[in-house]
Amino acid sequence: MADRKIDMVVNEDGDVAYLSLPDHPGKGSPGVVAKQISLHSIIKEYKGPEIYLDFDKNGVLIGMEFLLEQAD
Amino acid sequence: MADRKIDMVVNEDGDVAYLSLPDHPGKGSPGVVAKQISLHSIIKEYKGPEIYLDFDKNGVLIGMEFLLEQAD
Repeated sequence: MADRKIDMVVNEDGDVAYLSLPDHPGKGSPGVVAKQISLHSIIKEYKGPEIYLDFDKNGVLIGMEFLLEQAD
Repeated sequence: MADRKIDMVVNEDGDVAYLSLPDHPGKGSPGVVAKQISLHSIIKEYKGPEIYLDFDKNGVLIGMEFLLEQAD
């Protein structure tokens, strides 16, 4: 249990971030994301940064991508 | 724009994390969260950590709370 953790990496420009949840197998795992859902698609009249939820093949949420670039 | 950023704080036990989005006014702003929605309530058969989305009074997503304690 001790090595299960949450972690976030932000790119240099500070406009893209990736959050790894405890069940994420790590970056060196290509193809681990089986399904991606945007908050826009599941929340009516969503307001906020573009956020994508990453699910693995078992349907478990393993990570999130944040696109923070400002539209204004 | 430069001071707008994403930030995450994890508690000592590593089982609770709070993510502040760029529009979050900061910790010293009591009552800033007007609405809280759990992913469980908006995603059918959601599997993953308990996650709450925090919206301000304008309906903008400003933060997320992650409850990571392992049920197993």
